[in-house]
Amino acid sequence: MLFARPLAQLIAQLEKLPGVGPKSAQRLAFHILRMPADDVRLLADSLTDARRLLGFCSICQNISESELCPLCSDPRRQPDTICVVSETKDIAALERLNQYRGLYHVLHGELNPLQGLGPEQLRIKELLSRLGGNIEELIVATNPTTEGDATALYLARLLKPMGIRVTRLARGMPVGGELDYADSATLLDALEHRREMT
Amino acid sequence: MLFARPLAQLIAQLEKLPGVGPKSAQRLAFHILRMPADDVRLLADSLTDARRLLGFCSICQNISESELCPLCSDPRRQPDTICVVSETKDIAALERLNQYRGLYHVLHGELNPLQGLGPEQLRIKELLSRLGGNIEELIVATNPTTEGDATALYLARLLKPMGIRVTRLARGMPVGGELDYADSATLLDALEHRREMT
Repeated sequence: MLFARPLAQLIAQLEKLPGVGPKSAQRLAFHILRMPADDVRLLADSLTDARRLLGFCSICQNISESELCPLCSDPRRQPDTICVVSETKDIAALERLNQYRGLYHVLHGELNPLQGLGPEQLRIKELLSRLGGNIEELIVATNPTTEGDATALYLARLLKPMGIRVTRLARGMPVGGELDYADSATLLDALEHRREMT
Repeated sequence: MLFARPLAQLIAQLEKLPGVGPKSAQRLAFHILRMPADDVRLLADSLTDARRLLGFCSICQNISESELCPLCSDPRRQPDTICVVSETKDIAALERLNQYRGLYHVLHGELNPLQGLGPEQLRIKELLSRLGGNIEELIVATNPTTEGDATALYLARLLKPMGIRVTRLARGMPVGGELDYADSATLLDALEHRREMT
């Protein structure tokens, strides 16, 4: 027995978290022992509260505390555009821009046959049920990866016949990037889709 | 509001932990939302239990669930040798060797005047109160750093006049290390304290 039981128990629980190895679990545990008891209680409560209080928005499938998420229940959002993202956190990234005014749809994953993630595992059924007469554009903002591209392609083939405009985020050189550090796939995209300077 | 309130609250609490930035707090939070509710409860309980149930061993100052830690209450440990370490986790490292059979003393820090850590902030008073007639050797196993060395030197000067043998862990090339990757301080130590081959 190297550590007292409650300490060993805490380290074991922390080690189960993603990206937390034995060493960082130990470091976190010793930090927690030095924290004020009230702060530890706050952290513990926020864990159980988050798990207990949160569900999914019945429209866009965003993680939400209520039946409808604040975005879907906001009358100022344009209801004719849906931006499809892989995960809830991607909404946060787009909302930070303070630019897009339409609605969202969270797939909760991307197509990945090797991991057993097919169309049935994603929230695609829920997306289809939203595509009534007033949706003009679907912006597919899945990641620019093999899985994200496969998901985008799948959605485009599924929805184009329904007469809905399906677009994809532009790709190319990231702002501030350096040419000789860019991977060739990115550089190729940037070259192929070069834009006229005005 | 980018995330639902309980989710934002959880991310904020996780971000306070050492080595957890905004991105990893987000990643941990989303992982926790996908965990079975029972596992989340287990993690939350282990946090509060650890903070509530653990104190310090009244002899060696090791983190302990009881008044005396298992090491101090083990009659098979040699009571004439004390190994002084900076932190509880250093005991775990030494115990893993299954070699040392004496007792320990945890200082809970090392001398660091810049951070306001003087002898009064460490558990040195508690160490002195243990040094009755039957202590033969004090092995100072603080880290081989400026702070660890300063702490070792301070203890040696304090205890030598009391007729106690004070030793320090050997230093030199780490096993498996490569000469041309070793820093010069380590290499110098290894050269100065070179040992006769038998």
